[in-house]
Amino acid sequence: MEKKRFQKGIEHLEKQNPENYKKLKENLEDIAPDLARYVAEFAYGDIYTRPGLDAKSREMATIAALTALGNAPLQLQSHIEGALNAGCTRDEIVEVIMQMAVYAGFPAAINGMTNAKEVFSRLDK
Amino acid sequence: MEKKRFQKGIEHLEKQNPENYKKLKENLEDIAPDLARYVAEFAYGDIYTRPGLDAKSREMATIAALTALGNAPLQLQSHIEGALNAGCTRDEIVEVIMQMAVYAGFPAAINGMTNAKEVFSRLDK
Amino acid sequence: MEKKRFQKGIEHLEKQNPENYKKLKENLEDIAPDLARYVAEFAYGDIYTRPGLDAKSREMATIAALTALGNAPLQLQSHIEGALNAGCTRDEIVEVIMQMAVYAGFPAAINGMTNAKEVFSRLDK
Amino acid sequence: MEKKRFQKGIEHLEKQNPENYKKLKENLEDIAPDLARYVAEFAYGDIYTRPGLDAKSREMATIAALTALGNAPLQLQSHIEGALNAGCTRDEIVEVIMQMAVYAGFPAAINGMTNAKEVFSRLDK
Amino acid sequence: MEKKRFQKGIEHLEKQNPENYKKLKENLEDIAPDLARYVAEFAYGDIYTRPGLDAKSREMATIAALTALGNAPLQLQSHIEGALNAGCTRDEIVEVIMQMAVYAGFPAAINGMTNAKEVFSRLDK
Amino acid sequence: MEKKRFQKGIEHLEKQNPENYKKLKENLEDIAPDLARYVAEFAYGDIYTRPGLDAKSREMATIAALTALGNAPLQLQSHIEGALNAGCTRDEIVEVIMQMAVYAGFPAAINGMTNAKEVFSRLDK
Repeated sequence: MEKKRFQKGIEHLEKQNPENYKKLKENLEDIAPDLARYVAEFAYGDIYTRPGLDAKSREMATIAALTALGNAPLQLQSHIEGALNAGCTRDEIVEVIMQMAVYAGFPAAINGMTNAKEVFSRLDK
Repeated sequence: MEKKRFQKGIEHLEKQNPENYKKLKENLEDIAPDLARYVAEFAYGDIYTRPGLDAKSREMATIAALTALGNAPLQLQSHIEGALNAGCTRDEIVEVIMQMAVYAGFPAAINGMTNAKEVFSRLDK
Repeated sequence: MEKKRFQKGIEHLEKQNPENYKKLKENLEDIAPDLARYVAEFAYGDIYTRPGLDAKSREMATIAALTALGNAPLQLQSHIEGALNAGCTRDEIVEVIMQMAVYAGFPAAINGMTNAKEVFSRLDK
Repeated sequence: MEKKRFQKGIEHLEKQNPENYKKLKENLEDIAPDLARYVAEFAYGDIYTRPGLDAKSREMATIAALTALGNAPLQLQSHIEGALNAGCTRDEIVEVIMQMAVYAGFPAAINGMTNAKEVFSRLDK
Repeated sequence: MEKKRFQKGIEHLEKQNPENYKKLKENLEDIAPDLARYVAEFAYGDIYTRPGLDAKSREMATIAALTALGNAPLQLQSHIEGALNAGCTRDEIVEVIMQMAVYAGFPAAINGMTNAKEVFSRLDK
Repeated sequence: MEKKRFQKGIEHLEKQNPENYKKLKENLEDIAPDLARYVAEFAYGDIYTRPGLDAKSREMATIAALTALGNAPLQLQSHIEGALNAGCTRDEIVEVIMQMAVYAGFPAAINGMTNAKEVFSRLDK
């Protein structure tokens, strides 16, 4: 059963963020491999694969939250990629980030935009 | 032109949050009426009416951010209503809030859910 | 296996917060029963029952975080009770909260103390 | 010497927030009297009485920070009173709070304004 | 009219942050030029140019908020420059940042000070 | 008396963070030497040396708070070292940080872990 949650999470991650989970796992394997496992099991196996909300809306909700909180630029970049893989357009991502100026202030929105810019130019190379 | 931004914002608000902007305006009219005007002009006239992202996605992004930030329960409740008016189902709203457990912790998600519950039971009466 | 995680979490909760999980479950059962289940499975079944850190230290870490974040007074109160049940003294709890003045400012520490005071006087009745 | 820091703080508080420190002290005396003492000694005896910034600017800086952080409505109200006692006009206070819409989002500014409104109408009675 | 808000904002920016708005505009022009426009129109054209609070107090309020929030070091640096241009002394800026230790904790104040130090030594070259 | 608080703080710092306070002092000496002094006097002389909570628990509470707040990676690293010096094992530190996934979200916990990893590998060299 545990295996199944992990497996479900990994399958979701393969579609959304193929490279990023691999990096996370490598980053944590010496210090806290269980934390990487919980990301797959709980965040992806339990939450992202729930019915009732499509992958695209889930990624946009995450971009909104991480832009507003402003505490995790690398994870924001990872979810900007995930949103593109889930079918969001660049314009939609830009709109979500811009809207955060209203709820978390302009600096949060500008910093979110800088992260989007980095992802987009990385993908354009 | 200013009039136009204000008018555009008010028209959007009429569809999304008919009662809530009225309450906000009354609340601020003795102390800072310009702040209520900026909400109509900038938040709604400039941002929410931009093309490139539908009203439903905009409301879900706001619910995600306000749940994650946790600093504004009344505004979160107002946008839960706005999301319903924009065509979100209750299930979709619940999913967005639940997902915030991953990005802002369980207490933030539980508090968001308590706000959704209040809105839903108010509407059911 | 899932059953086992849930069961492990519930057993931990029986010792630490007998009343509070029941209240949380009732609060969420109409709107998001899965969120209450994840609290038992992930927060308690996966995390709190991990070896490597005793229950008392875990509760103090939670009190520190919730005092510093300041976004969840009810959960803070619940963990102040949990800390007492895990063997913390009132003095130790007061010290953890006071120390947060250094890391999150005096208002956060004072608000945390108000929550501790409510729990202590509730228990004294 | 300690006495002197405490004394300096209390003297400053007598001018700025005569009632509020008394309330804080009473609130904390059963649980953490030292925390109230540190407020007098460190926050007021060490910081607010430093030369190099006038009392009015100090109170406005505090109002800006507490509005932006949004975690301490009672302390914000206390400093709105303190700002008035230090010579700020109501308009200046309203302007500081409104400006926070730019840096912490509209909900933070609106909530700050609600706190200012409560203080102003309490004083008008 | 829109032109007028933008123009008012730009004129204010010319006095306060001549270089920084130019950089912001260049940074956003490929991805979200409207966000840079809103900064000029709303943040500067609407808010900073309001009567009722002088430019110096506005910049100090912003420094207080950005130090306390801790989420935007580049914008904090930009407003430290803006504050100097508005007539604040270095000492006044240092005092505002130091005071944030009381409201947002020592790490926030220390990080704010590091940003002030960078600005001051850049200007000294 | 003031001397005594400072002295007490410095003695505590000599045991817990011998190098880090020196760096902090050097970093602040041109701009705000009093802020470094307050760290020694208030944070260490007043708070960390209070009876009622052992040094190990104090350092773990700080790690919990700084991981959850996510605003001060360098100070978090400094307290991870301090925790080791106070007798925490690496495993205990990892557990405290991991637990923050529940209260502040996975990105905060992952970023905390990255900081722990940096400290551990620095010490291993």
